[in-house]
Amino acid sequence: MSQQTLEQLRAQVDEMNQQLLELINKRATVVQEIGKIKEKHGGNRYDPVRERGMLDKIKQLNDGPFEDSTILHIFKEIFKAGVELQSDDHQKALLV
Amino acid sequence: MSQQTLEQLRAQVDEMNQQLLELINKRATVVQEIGKIKEKHGGNRYDPVRERGMLDKIKQLNDGPFEDSTILHIFKEIFKAGVELQSDDHQKALLV
Repeated sequence: MSQQTLEQLRAQVDEMNQQLLELINKRATVVQEIGKIKEKHGGNRYDPVRERGMLDKIKQLNDGPFEDSTILHIFKEIFKAGVELQSDDHQKALLV
Repeated sequence: MSQQTLEQLRAQVDEMNQQLLELINKRATVVQEIGKIKEKHGGNRYDPVRERGMLDKIKQLNDGPFEDSTILHIFKEIFKAGVELQSDDHQKALLV
């Protein structure tokens, strides 16, 4: 009985992993668009004030079970990956 | 014009941040449930084979723009946080 429940819960986790994957990549495409606009206007791709603002909003919205510090750590990794992606695009643009 | 577009894109990112936050926390509550079942059956809360299987599935589903390595890094952070949360629950249970 609880073996089946374990299977069901794991299926839910798999489903959420897939949703997270899609959302993280969808977010990355929007971040790439933002990078292109900033590129055109000569703006700095990394904006610490914007990042701080996003983290504050996320912290405010967090109602667990993860602690704020855990959530912020995960989001910082997602943000960092986004900045690196913009930087890759920039490198590729320079090579064209 | 493109200033407005930047604002719109940023609003999309904020929206996706919120969705990610909800999904990450929803995933954590399911992981807590799994931890409780395993606890009852004396199973090890950390299961490297299950983790490997999840990472393989995620890698297979990933179609970018993030590289597989970036995606796997982010998911490993999410998994680690989940394991830590189960460990916290275990500690609290011992203290009751």
